[in-house]
Amino acid sequence: MKLIRFGVSIPESLSKKFDEHIRKKHYSNRSEALRDLIRKELIQEEIEQDMEVVGVVNLLYDHHKRELTDKLTELQHNHHHIVLSTMHIHLDHRNCLEVILLRGRSQEVKDLADALIATKGVKHGNLNLTSTGKHLV
Amino acid sequence: MKLIRFGVSIPESLSKKFDEHIRKKHYSNRSEALRDLIRKELIQEEIEQDMEVVGVVNLLYDHHKRELTDKLTELQHNHHHIVLSTMHIHLDHRNCLEVILLRGRSQEVKDLADALIATKGVKHGNLNLTSTGKHLV
Amino acid sequence: MKLIRFGVSIPESLSKKFDEHIRKKHYSNRSEALRDLIRKELIQEEIEQDMEVVGVVNLLYDHHKRELTDKLTELQHNHHHIVLSTMHIHLDHRNCLEVILLRGRSQEVKDLADALIATKGVKHGNLNLTSTGKHLV
Amino acid sequence: MKLIRFGVSIPESLSKKFDEHIRKKHYSNRSEALRDLIRKELIQEEIEQDMEVVGVVNLLYDHHKRELTDKLTELQHNHHHIVLSTMHIHLDHRNCLEVILLRGRSQEVKDLADALIATKGVKHGNLNLTSTGKHLV
Repeated sequence: MKLIRFGVSIPESLSKKFDEHIRKKHYSNRSEALRDLIRKELIQEEIEQDMEVVGVVNLLYDHHKRELTDKLTELQHNHHHIVLSTMHIHLDHRNCLEVILLRGRSQEVKDLADALIATKGVKHGNLNLTSTGKHLV
Repeated sequence: MKLIRFGVSIPESLSKKFDEHIRKKHYSNRSEALRDLIRKELIQEEIEQDMEVVGVVNLLYDHHKRELTDKLTELQHNHHHIVLSTMHIHLDHRNCLEVILLRGRSQEVKDLADALIATKGVKHGNLNLTSTGKHLV
Repeated sequence: MKLIRFGVSIPESLSKKFDEHIRKKHYSNRSEALRDLIRKELIQEEIEQDMEVVGVVNLLYDHHKRELTDKLTELQHNHHHIVLSTMHIHLDHRNCLEVILLRGRSQEVKDLADALIATKGVKHGNLNLTSTGKHLV
Repeated sequence: MKLIRFGVSIPESLSKKFDEHIRKKHYSNRSEALRDLIRKELIQEEIEQDMEVVGVVNLLYDHHKRELTDKLTELQHNHHHIVLSTMHIHLDHRNCLEVILLRGRSQEVKDLADALIATKGVKHGNLNLTSTGKHLV
């Protein structure tokens, strides 16, 4: 991986505030922080252009509803080609958190996430889209 | 306004993608694009820390409901110290868009925006928070 | 406008929390709050499907940069068919806030907003998309 | 869990659009869709009030940077009281996705997420906050 270096000019007062900000956010230096801001912008583009993305779905539900678990499992099997992996956490004696990793075109990832979240008995769910990393060296 | 200049190193492939991105977004050069990314981060902090911010509220409603206009006006007068200005647009024979500029601590701005949006008859509304510019040279 | 009425069943504890929430948000009753939640969902769809939308752009800049004002005005004139109106606020002796209302397909609205925000000298800007109201009775 | 039932009135045209929307989103009926919209609103409040929340962090990185894995593991051990579980996915021969579940006050969850995301070598990361479910029956 070849690194390139270029100069950036910014007003002094802005640079002071930025330095304070990245210290608070635990970045070790400006380049690291700026690379992250750049990648965040580029990932937004991958999502909007229906490229291949990774989706992290989280579902909050009450595991006492047995049929619910079956329904969620079935939905995932019906789309097994875009389901990578699942993690399950027992939050308390009733509440579970299930985190499901999906990988596919952003539209099909959104569609399966919608179906999982809409399943009767799921209290809350959402989808976070990120990159496969292929186009982000 | 004193400008400072510093070097940033990023992987070559990332820099290529970024150049393509900022061209699409109409930026004239990398510094300009990076300054914008930096300010966007800093404004997020101003909002979270309940600093003085500017709020742009937009309300979509049917102006045939006369009482509605009166209620919205009254709400604004009751908080006149944080209302800067209002712009009104006739979208069609029924629908109006009203854009109201607020300035105050982020919490009071949010609270007034909530009240405006919740007024019976307002079809849709939202609030966009930005900076007063004072801390963003 | 014909109103229809239907029954909704929700757990008692959820309904209590919701009542508390809508009181805080200043809604007068549950129907009003639910209609707003429904419209918020539908507007998201209008935006994603590149339908005609209204965009509220806000730009924060230093008006001492005279060329900047000219550039922003020219950009708006070049796209006058989607620019509805502009409001200008003097935040302090240097900082201005300009709010520009656009109306068009969501993609062309986003594109002009990008160009305005990317103009050299604009400190910060963002775009808030909302509905024309036509499809939201 | 006691269910209560109440009536909602909405304009007929809005109800038609909503029915179409919830069909697309795979909901089985209006009550289910409305319960989800209500919970989404309430979770936003839990987050803003620094209540106990669950955070799902995802990190995209190149596992060839060995020190990176060590640093991420150490950060998690230093905050083991709020780290619930971790899932690791091999996206390709270089890229990994790590999903880390956190549970704590929203501020400390955000702070650890910031530190993980800022670690040198992490290409991209973000945090998705959700509820513990305790207050959302």
